[in-house]
Amino acid sequence: MNFSSDNWAGATAPVMAALNRHSTGLAPAYGTDPLTEDISARFSEIFETEVTVFFVSTGSAANSLALSAFAKPGGAIFCHRDAHIQVDECGAPEFLTSGGKLVSVSGAAGKITAEALREAMSAFPDGVVHHGQVASVSITQPTECGTLYTLEEIRQIKAVADERGVPLHMDGARFANALVSLGCTPADMTWKAGVDVLSFGATKNGCWCAEVVVFFDPKKALGFEYFRKRAGHLFSKSRFVAAQLEGYFEDDAWLETAAQSNNMALRLAQGIRASGGRTAWPVEANEVFPILPKDTVKRLQDAGALFYDWPANGLPDDMAPSENEVCLRLVTSFATQAADVDCFLELLKV
Amino acid sequence: MNFSSDNWAGATAPVMAALNRHSTGLAPAYGTDPLTEDISARFSEIFETEVTVFFVSTGSAANSLALSAFAKPGGAIFCHRDAHIQVDECGAPEFLTSGGKLVSVSGAAGKITAEALREAMSAFPDGVVHHGQVASVSITQPTECGTLYTLEEIRQIKAVADERGVPLHMDGARFANALVSLGCTPADMTWKAGVDVLSFGATKNGCWCAEVVVFFDPKKALGFEYFRKRAGHLFSKSRFVAAQLEGYFEDDAWLETAAQSNNMALRLAQGIRASGGRTAWPVEANEVFPILPKDTVKRLQDAGALFYDWPANGLPDDMAPSENEVCLRLVTSFATQAADVDCFLELLKV
Amino acid sequence: MNFSSDNWAGATAPVMAALNRHSTGLAPAYGTDPLTEDISARFSEIFETEVTVFFVSTGSAANSLALSAFAKPGGAIFCHRDAHIQVDECGAPEFLTSGGKLVSVSGAAGKITAEALREAMSAFPDGVVHHGQVASVSITQPTECGTLYTLEEIRQIKAVADERGVPLHMDGARFANALVSLGCTPADMTWKAGVDVLSFGATKNGCWCAEVVVFFDPKKALGFEYFRKRAGHLFSKSRFVAAQLEGYFEDDAWLETAAQSNNMALRLAQGIRASGGRTAWPVEANEVFPILPKDTVKRLQDAGALFYDWPANGLPDDMAPSENEVCLRLVTSFATQAADVDCFLELLKV
Amino acid sequence: MNFSSDNWAGATAPVMAALNRHSTGLAPAYGTDPLTEDISARFSEIFETEVTVFFVSTGSAANSLALSAFAKPGGAIFCHRDAHIQVDECGAPEFLTSGGKLVSVSGAAGKITAEALREAMSAFPDGVVHHGQVASVSITQPTECGTLYTLEEIRQIKAVADERGVPLHMDGARFANALVSLGCTPADMTWKAGVDVLSFGATKNGCWCAEVVVFFDPKKALGFEYFRKRAGHLFSKSRFVAAQLEGYFEDDAWLETAAQSNNMALRLAQGIRASGGRTAWPVEANEVFPILPKDTVKRLQDAGALFYDWPANGLPDDMAPSENEVCLRLVTSFATQAADVDCFLELLKV
Repeated sequence: MNFSSDNWAGATAPVMAALNRHSTGLAPAYGTDPLTEDISARFSEIFETEVTVFFVSTGSAANSLALSAFAKPGGAIFCHRDAHIQVDECGAPEFLTSGGKLVSVSGAAGKITAEALREAMSAFPDGVVHHGQVASVSITQPTECGTLYTLEEIRQIKAVADERGVPLHMDGARFANALVSLGCTPADMTWKAGVDVLSFGATKNGCWCAEVVVFFDPKKALGFEYFRKRAGHLFSKSRFVAAQLEGYFEDDAWLETAAQSNNMALRLAQGIRASGGRTAWPVEANEVFPILPKDTVKRLQDAGALFYDWPANGLPDDMAPSENEVCLRLVTSFATQAADVDCFLELLKV
Repeated sequence: MNFSSDNWAGATAPVMAALNRHSTGLAPAYGTDPLTEDISARFSEIFETEVTVFFVSTGSAANSLALSAFAKPGGAIFCHRDAHIQVDECGAPEFLTSGGKLVSVSGAAGKITAEALREAMSAFPDGVVHHGQVASVSITQPTECGTLYTLEEIRQIKAVADERGVPLHMDGARFANALVSLGCTPADMTWKAGVDVLSFGATKNGCWCAEVVVFFDPKKALGFEYFRKRAGHLFSKSRFVAAQLEGYFEDDAWLETAAQSNNMALRLAQGIRASGGRTAWPVEANEVFPILPKDTVKRLQDAGALFYDWPANGLPDDMAPSENEVCLRLVTSFATQAADVDCFLELLKV
Repeated sequence: MNFSSDNWAGATAPVMAALNRHSTGLAPAYGTDPLTEDISARFSEIFETEVTVFFVSTGSAANSLALSAFAKPGGAIFCHRDAHIQVDECGAPEFLTSGGKLVSVSGAAGKITAEALREAMSAFPDGVVHHGQVASVSITQPTECGTLYTLEEIRQIKAVADERGVPLHMDGARFANALVSLGCTPADMTWKAGVDVLSFGATKNGCWCAEVVVFFDPKKALGFEYFRKRAGHLFSKSRFVAAQLEGYFEDDAWLETAAQSNNMALRLAQGIRASGGRTAWPVEANEVFPILPKDTVKRLQDAGALFYDWPANGLPDDMAPSENEVCLRLVTSFATQAADVDCFLELLKV
Repeated sequence: MNFSSDNWAGATAPVMAALNRHSTGLAPAYGTDPLTEDISARFSEIFETEVTVFFVSTGSAANSLALSAFAKPGGAIFCHRDAHIQVDECGAPEFLTSGGKLVSVSGAAGKITAEALREAMSAFPDGVVHHGQVASVSITQPTECGTLYTLEEIRQIKAVADERGVPLHMDGARFANALVSLGCTPADMTWKAGVDVLSFGATKNGCWCAEVVVFFDPKKALGFEYFRKRAGHLFSKSRFVAAQLEGYFEDDAWLETAAQSNNMALRLAQGIRASGGRTAWPVEANEVFPILPKDTVKRLQDAGALFYDWPANGLPDDMAPSENEVCLRLVTSFATQAADVDCFLELLKV
């Protein structure tokens, strides 16, 4: 009953198989090997357009470096107040953009709204040097609340970004989970909806370490290799990432593992509701945020269940935890078993 | 006959075995897993003192972040003019130290001398704000010329660093090769000789991606986790590095692979000399820099040999390549076979 | 009727007289001249303790550099959401601290409260690398709302800063206005209440360009000259600042000009209330924020009055401007004349 | 007999007169006042083309910010090894460009040559990410050796910069001295010879504090106000700089003061040669570098003469100081009197 995080899991069998397959022999370093080139081409196929991809070492690096490519002096980066870049990356976006300011935008269920974005941007009128200048917009899909932007919502946000001439970044640390849940194509969820640059995360969904910055316009990717190298994020043995991704994409393994973790989350959610509980937000990917009585939580912990408490920010009063309740975050992964879920659910019943 | 670089090799069998062994199951993220803790303790055993270690993603990151921990405003970092941090890291040390200046120090065979270091530092007298201030000294072991500092040379450099109260960093991208060649202990080559912080590289010697910043005084390591995270270098699935290192250290595998590559380099060097050739610098680790007639080089290339040309900086006139000669860099690795070496040597003979 | 800002004024007669007096002759550059030393000593007298002072070129530089001296990787700087460093300095604090994050703290009338500060800091628990770490607290005296922290309020904020072991910075761009209004000593309002470092602004109160970073503990000032120089803020002809300050302090000229501007603000406030109007916040220094009917504002503008609109953030509903009202900012300076004020007040009456 | 530096002087009478003239009244802040606009227009007249100008607070700021506008990740800035930006600005160029690397270029008499520049740039081939990328070229006019680039030499350097597509910056801390000495127009010495951006220094030549970044192509100046403000270099009372420049330019006062200091330098040089001495480099502006016997230097000091020793870097052996000699730097300014010079010269004779 370990629902701590999807980054507690290891690597999937196809990923390990590919790593083993490519572990011998010599290949050019620093991303010029044939396997890295193959996988780069594979990304263009998957996204149905010519993309430029860069492997980096962590999701924080992917986000921060993507944003650094669009940084400006006094630049403001707009994101949800709960976004990973805002609260969980130890200032990496600020540091790697040489001092960018992350401006929090409100919105229910972890999602910024087009209106709130426009309002937040209005504090940075063009040409008023004191306030700085708008630099970029970043959304997270799925969000920190386990919810999803619809394609229409992404398009609306893009429209606001366009009003100010700034690019749209998507933090896709759990990209596959969103994709499978929405049932759309990778192209639909990204460049067709207006995303300019994507942090494509594969680590949480079954790789050891495979995070990719994807530019949908190769012209915007020009020079990005210098941003990456300057921050120490150019792997010498790049094929170790490429190999993982080969296994990841093989026979749609990535979609299967994402479906598995999403399904486990749904199973959790249904069980919680069936036992009379509620979740803070809709369960749309692989995270579940049940609000449970404190004594139930204690019972779960005593039985060995692992999870984190979660600040249920921004809930309406009638949804928020009462004094006797607490909000938990349960994350499922490809390694989550139905038996684990059921064991957890069993404990909810008294 | 591929002597391009040791980072063209993949991963060794023990490293892959350990990775496979640890690929399943759940473990805490971000370096709090038991395996990472085990390997950290292993470092203290290997270095015979309590060390604090941090996994990072690349050698450039290890160097730059180690130096960032000792950065100062207007800080000058002293290194050899050919050092990797000076010429091969795309300004990562400057960027990650928020504007440090890398001051080149001269010295034959890739090694700075204590005298040249003292002289270079004298341009930064204490208290003269215009020139900035001394921040740290960095040496590379083995050097970019494939040579080694003796323990006494390291101690002398440390003594100069002490005169100005700054720490000594060692770039050990090929640490094991140096260690095996000198035949000393890890402790001898580092803290006992005055090294304060080490970039311990395992990638080139048989891992996929395993670079470690080692602090020999835990007090100096305080707060370093924030430097690492702020630059996007904290792996979520830290155990994938730990597992590699488990395999790396197992049964002294790391020393064996280093010995293998060193031996292949010596075999190359002996054959080159036997055929009447010369090397730019003594062969003391796993790099060989032969100076060869251009037509010989052409013959080697036509036969499929892979290597890079190398600027033979700083050679005395009677050693430097003539107009008809060129200096090559040949790097051996754990994957280099004696047959490959012999095939190369055969081509030297007409 | 120009109430645009106190930085629209020029220099006072004593300041110009001192500048003229010191404009000839030769003196050492870069702050080593006798006049700079005299003025530095004068600061120690004024603050009744040994202080270390640094002239810098702007208030933004003073704030940002002061904060940079206490920066940490992933460091969070806590300030009011309306603070100058948060909204008016184009990211200078973020840039000059190499990526600090400015965390907004709520509070009525431009003042953070100890409780809100503690709550905001709780999002940065010690040792949790993801969220970064607390670095410093900054308050503005007088605030952006023209209000003042009482000495007790400063002490309470300091106590919270102490709980987390971080220093307290005061942005004193209008330091003299606060001092005169509170009727306390410079020592009372700063180090005796817990301020570690002060941005002492003299520009708005009658100098051309005289901004000073004041450290109340000389040990904390060690090395600050490198921060200043590294950002290009070390004046060569330092005595041009020193001379201004000589004139500024002479015969308590600075207190007189501050009293003059404060009195003009009070006269405005009293007149506004006498005519049935209200101000958004109490008038405690040299800024007045009347909330006026839009047609009155139009009448004022038609008559040539100059001022800026102001977002009346954070007012309770019963105080906030109605649809037909707007909040203005009126700033008085040493150059403001009673006749100007009276002319403005006359226009309020219909 | 004070030849310490031209920044030991105060302000000239026309500069003080203008400051006094503009010290009263109210004017918009932050560079939007009519006087700043007038002076900006005056720059376009002086340079015979439409320029965009920005006042900043110091010469170091002017240089570093100008270079920051052309910064790139991993960017290399090429300058003479003795350039002020390389040795006298405490890392401000590195810091304000977020980690730029200043690459030293050799050349006699403080001047880089086109050939040496091309050679230095060749270490940064396009597209090789490890080495970083060429970002800009900076020359100093007059140089740190008091010598001048001819217009043809500037054009040749520009041609090399053009080969790599990077801009040419001129550090004109003593711009007027160079201009008067060459007898050309400001346009000739800058944009007509290929200069893209100029640090126009007026402080050393008679202002208190007037340093200006001049862009010769307004398009390249776009957004520069954000670089300036982000570093804390936007003066609120901008007219205090504008006023100084009004006085500076009035009746060609700036050319007269520069001529005066140049003449005093020539008088020094001629006297030194007449007494059998030599200078390290030709005297082409307002700096003289005599190489004198140590006992002569002692005699000068005993008589109260003030100057700095100077490392006579890069002199050919037959010019370099012998064991019994030392190289001095004598700087003249508008405040230098012929009597002072003659007194100094008298002391050279035994």
